[in-house]
Amino acid sequence: MNIQEEILEIGKKARKAAYLMAKASSSQKDTALHQIAEALATEKTRIMEANKKDLENASTQGISGAKYDRLKITEKILNEMIAGIREVIAWPDPVGKIVSMWTRPNGLRVGRMRIPLGVIGIIYESRPNVTVDATILCVKAGNSVILRGGSEAFNSNQCLVSIIRESLQRANLPEDAVQFIPTTDRTAVTEMLKMEEYIDVMIPRGGEELIRFVNDNARMPVLKHYKGVCHVFVDKGADLKMAIEVCENAKVQRPGVCNAMETLLVHKDIAENFLPKMQEVFEKHGVELRGCRKTREIIQCKEATEEDWYEEYLDLILAIKVVDDMNSAIEHIHKYGSSHTEAIVTEDYERAWKFIEAVQSSLVLVNASTRFNDGYQLGLGAEIGISTSRLHAFGPMGVDELTTTKFIAFGNGQLRS
Amino acid sequence: MNIQEEILEIGKKARKAAYLMAKASSSQKDTALHQIAEALATEKTRIMEANKKDLENASTQGISGAKYDRLKITEKILNEMIAGIREVIAWPDPVGKIVSMWTRPNGLRVGRMRIPLGVIGIIYESRPNVTVDATILCVKAGNSVILRGGSEAFNSNQCLVSIIRESLQRANLPEDAVQFIPTTDRTAVTEMLKMEEYIDVMIPRGGEELIRFVNDNARMPVLKHYKGVCHVFVDKGADLKMAIEVCENAKVQRPGVCNAMETLLVHKDIAENFLPKMQEVFEKHGVELRGCRKTREIIQCKEATEEDWYEEYLDLILAIKVVDDMNSAIEHIHKYGSSHTEAIVTEDYERAWKFIEAVQSSLVLVNASTRFNDGYQLGLGAEIGISTSRLHAFGPMGVDELTTTKFIAFGNGQLRS
Repeated sequence: MNIQEEILEIGKKARKAAYLMAKASSSQKDTALHQIAEALATEKTRIMEANKKDLENASTQGISGAKYDRLKITEKILNEMIAGIREVIAWPDPVGKIVSMWTRPNGLRVGRMRIPLGVIGIIYESRPNVTVDATILCVKAGNSVILRGGSEAFNSNQCLVSIIRESLQRANLPEDAVQFIPTTDRTAVTEMLKMEEYIDVMIPRGGEELIRFVNDNARMPVLKHYKGVCHVFVDKGADLKMAIEVCENAKVQRPGVCNAMETLLVHKDIAENFLPKMQEVFEKHGVELRGCRKTREIIQCKEATEEDWYEEYLDLILAIKVVDDMNSAIEHIHKYGSSHTEAIVTEDYERAWKFIEAVQSSLVLVNASTRFNDGYQLGLGAEIGISTSRLHAFGPMGVDELTTTKFIAFGNGQLRS
Repeated sequence: MNIQEEILEIGKKARKAAYLMAKASSSQKDTALHQIAEALATEKTRIMEANKKDLENASTQGISGAKYDRLKITEKILNEMIAGIREVIAWPDPVGKIVSMWTRPNGLRVGRMRIPLGVIGIIYESRPNVTVDATILCVKAGNSVILRGGSEAFNSNQCLVSIIRESLQRANLPEDAVQFIPTTDRTAVTEMLKMEEYIDVMIPRGGEELIRFVNDNARMPVLKHYKGVCHVFVDKGADLKMAIEVCENAKVQRPGVCNAMETLLVHKDIAENFLPKMQEVFEKHGVELRGCRKTREIIQCKEATEEDWYEEYLDLILAIKVVDDMNSAIEHIHKYGSSHTEAIVTEDYERAWKFIEAVQSSLVLVNASTRFNDGYQLGLGAEIGISTSRLHAFGPMGVDELTTTKFIAFGNGQLRS
């Protein structure tokens, strides 16, 4: 078989398995997840050995630093994967849930019932824990999954997938519900993207280049997330202490992630009071500030250029702009933002609602840190990513977002006239 | 400006207008819809004259029959358009609706609020009433729309769009919320499909070839509907009278539409009793029957080939298969169906639920006609089409499906630890 045929075969098997997964009971799926959790614990040595091969290859290729670290499966990471599975087991099964139901004038009872999406394709880069985390959510929601991980983690991923497949089999679920593309050839990705008939949705996770490639070439829907240029707007009359704490948390609690603040917008009436105090806190953390002209009239810092407003630093750098009113803040967000996460700090009831309504990002907060845009933090449980595309899912994608709803109708002989 | 630049300019204007439309109040949008309804009535002569040009061109090009009829705007069609607008006005505004709300252990109140999708691109074939029907729904949901209609209806569409734009302006809404691609050049479509930044979703309406072209080339999500190979399964022990009425309605009430029955599946235990009576009814309507071997042992009819099971006849033709049990019926639907609409006629409670749960189509009915898969019939109001893609919308797409939800969160200084 050549690659095309091989990928097509994987697609067909996934579709067949999806049919069985959709019919699987909650307890069958949870049993499989238990089996996976146990197997990850008992097969520790096997996993570590496979991972060692990847780490050795990485060293040979001169991979080091953060990239090498992301590749490494430590005892801690393995335990986190297992703990993650236990949490997903505790979560209710979304499949079969009747979301709403109503009766038509002719007596027809119409409702919506959650069903799995079908076959989910996941294309990701180096981190092997994605293999487990993403698969678990797909299985819980009754889907098949086709995984295409980065070449650096090839051995680790292959080992994890074979452990998962063995566990599915032990729980009498089709092992083909979880498949792994057995090659690092890029052609495999191109072929996957054509298989509209066998893959219902593609979820790319990784750098912007990978995501754009998947988006531009996929014939099936793509759930994606480009970047997070998140804003905090400190309103006039804001509680200064709260504003400082929220901005500190949003910027420095974990600067390298997509829901960290990248631009701070400050109402002109509070700027003189707020900015010097805020600067003190940021200086303590070593945050580099880049300000607009008005900012630099109040505090000493670098100049922010037009490019800074578009920038996702993912680092201890912050752009600051003083705005004349809330409308200017909203328009700045509309122009430069990425529809990810924005927060307002305010004491004003009307202005809080105006901001909530006017800003069209996946999460809009009042008086809380942007860092809350996360499945666990919002109460959705584990997530497979944060979508900034508006269709199907907008924001964190939990188990529910890996399902759709079908209409169901109960009649007693209704005919259309 | 060349076509590329022209289309890009339209996209930019649409995005700008979408920002204003998202902020528009319900009464502002409803006022605009009222203005449109009134203008369609008062500008009747202008519309008819534009339509006359299209009809004359069509005659010159030798277009006749159903295609010519679809192009024609009669007084009746115009009145239906206007009545449709009045219904949409009466429908509640989906935008701003808080769909759900919950409180996290740290006191953060998290919810989901409906917001418009943004900019919707619609590519459609000849019927000019789509111009009005689709636009009205997009406006109600606070979106911008870019329309690209078929070349045959060019003058009619241009006239209708200019009337709509004048009405938007009179209601102080941006006229660029509704734009019309002013060329029939195919390049215009190709350019639209690339504009991920300015068009949030593409909705193609028309033949399968058009839909495939849009789907394979669009960089944004596509809401689509290929075909409807709808099934009715008559279970053993079904109420014979009800079974016959449901099948008659599903096949002959309007055979040329996507939710008409194309294949009838009959449980072997009821086939000998049911099929001859059913045949009598279908004969009266002139329905051509094509049966499997077992069917032809009971009634005289043509032979159904393997291709018949895949066929969407859209005509007075029906494929019939006798199945050994319900599982065979479900598997037949899974293999040959199009995920559109399937119904079971049964008196058995457990078997009704089994069918509802196992069949993964956009609408699954018990004891009712497949013809109910329609926005009005299910109680969603006017629809922009029926989606058989599983993401975002599965089934009829009403005003709600032209929105998405953003997360909103109200805190009092919550920080992430």
